[in-house]
Amino acid sequence: MESSNHRVVALLGHGVIPPNSPPIAADDLGFTRGDGCFDAMRVVRDAHGVRVDHRDRHLARFARSAAAMDLPPIDVSAWAGLIDQAAAAWTGDGEAVCKVIWTRGGEFVASDPVGVVLIAPGPASCVPLRVAGLHTGRTSDAFRNAPWLLGGVKTISYAMNAAAKREANRRGVDDALFISSDGYLLEGPTSALVVARDGLLDTTPTQDTGILASVTVDVLREHAAQHGREFRERLIQPEELNLVDGAWLVSAIRGVCPIIELDGRSVAFSPRISHTLARWAGFAAA
Amino acid sequence: MESSNHRVVALLGHGVIPPNSPPIAADDLGFTRGDGCFDAMRVVRDAHGVRVDHRDRHLARFARSAAAMDLPPIDVSAWAGLIDQAAAAWTGDGEAVCKVIWTRGGEFVASDPVGVVLIAPGPASCVPLRVAGLHTGRTSDAFRNAPWLLGGVKTISYAMNAAAKREANRRGVDDALFISSDGYLLEGPTSALVVARDGLLDTTPTQDTGILASVTVDVLREHAAQHGREFRERLIQPEELNLVDGAWLVSAIRGVCPIIELDGRSVAFSPRISHTLARWAGFAAA
Repeated sequence: MESSNHRVVALLGHGVIPPNSPPIAADDLGFTRGDGCFDAMRVVRDAHGVRVDHRDRHLARFARSAAAMDLPPIDVSAWAGLIDQAAAAWTGDGEAVCKVIWTRGGEFVASDPVGVVLIAPGPASCVPLRVAGLHTGRTSDAFRNAPWLLGGVKTISYAMNAAAKREANRRGVDDALFISSDGYLLEGPTSALVVARDGLLDTTPTQDTGILASVTVDVLREHAAQHGREFRERLIQPEELNLVDGAWLVSAIRGVCPIIELDGRSVAFSPRISHTLARWAGFAAA
Repeated sequence: MESSNHRVVALLGHGVIPPNSPPIAADDLGFTRGDGCFDAMRVVRDAHGVRVDHRDRHLARFARSAAAMDLPPIDVSAWAGLIDQAAAAWTGDGEAVCKVIWTRGGEFVASDPVGVVLIAPGPASCVPLRVAGLHTGRTSDAFRNAPWLLGGVKTISYAMNAAAKREANRRGVDDALFISSDGYLLEGPTSALVVARDGLLDTTPTQDTGILASVTVDVLREHAAQHGREFRERLIQPEELNLVDGAWLVSAIRGVCPIIELDGRSVAFSPRISHTLARWAGFAAA
């Protein structure tokens, strides 16, 4: 799709490598079992040069994911250095996604853990989203005291997230929104949920729900606080989307995307709040 | 751990490659998102040469997994040929595991799908298992009409299975046994459950439960039928393990392993039935 010089591949302990030379062993546990963690952040080239948005917040979450999976600890400064090295080597324009991936290494041959930094053109920019509600088959508190379910851990075992996107496309819409078996909205396959109602901003709770703590939500929460706006964390039912001023799926890569339809029912769209949220999140308004 | 000539790596469309040259791109969707399927079968060298047990049954399941994930279809004869080529190149003794893995290819750079055959020394042979019951947070019918949950699909997104094994080890036992939120035994992270009671053999149902259809259970079922033994499929509660003549976690790689303890409570062990099941499954008796 893209010319290879718009992609960068770097390995922890080695630095930038040629993007077309495959670096991963066939028995890497990340490949054979999805047994590793990742994180993804936005890379932007503008008049001031290249920057990696919220690098340290993403690395902090990456470190929490690794700890939750009993992976070797993340050396944050080594990863920060490798990300900066990769970003400096990136020759693309506009925006890109920077992924960091950390695995245990070989399943059959003992190896050091494997750390990868990938920079590549990001997905198309944000569009208003029609979404399908897809149940997870779990209640909203299913992850309480169940660390083996890896709730809130950004593992590379994303097959279900990918399948949910495909199911949404099969239903003729743009994205999925997970719903617990007891009827609460959770998150998108690659995004968090934010809702505006009665002058307040809400998002869905992490912890017992298994929802991933969103870097973008954290950034929005801080901006909201600076503007004296409350940002609540609470369980939200699908029917409530009839009553909101707006709802969004937010992520570090795609930004703040308004949900305009859930399962065929319209959701209110507020250009004003969308613009505010996009600005707070560091993205141009939708 | 092992000398590399006891491992074989082969790529679909290429054949056997040097085992130490990494063939997988850093942005392979199998590596970045666990978005691929796999299967695993046993390779045995004995006086008659090298054989791959139940190759075609595993490839049939592999093809079903690929279809359920909207992966490109499995060319069964091409895979069978590649497996045989890899097995012929394998120089090890005794038993090994043969894994087949199929992914969509590159996330950022369009590529052909990637097919890998891996042969490597298998896990230690079967021992009596003390197991920990770990809930999945889902009811026993959560997968009904929910194809995005990928129930019964052998995806490479196995992080939760790996985490369950670690949780079991943390609790000082050998393996995990998943339990639905409505209180039914399901399967192990890499094995199926078989129970003997009142002269009958039982296993847990696939389909709505999300349990993977086990090749080993299919083989046992056929042998049981040949001996006029009924093999039922039904939901089983943990308390019932107090009443059984024996319970086993069975898999194509490890064989038929008796469960001797669940959450600290003893489970009856029958050497006689264990021996019969192991023989039927093609494994030496435990």
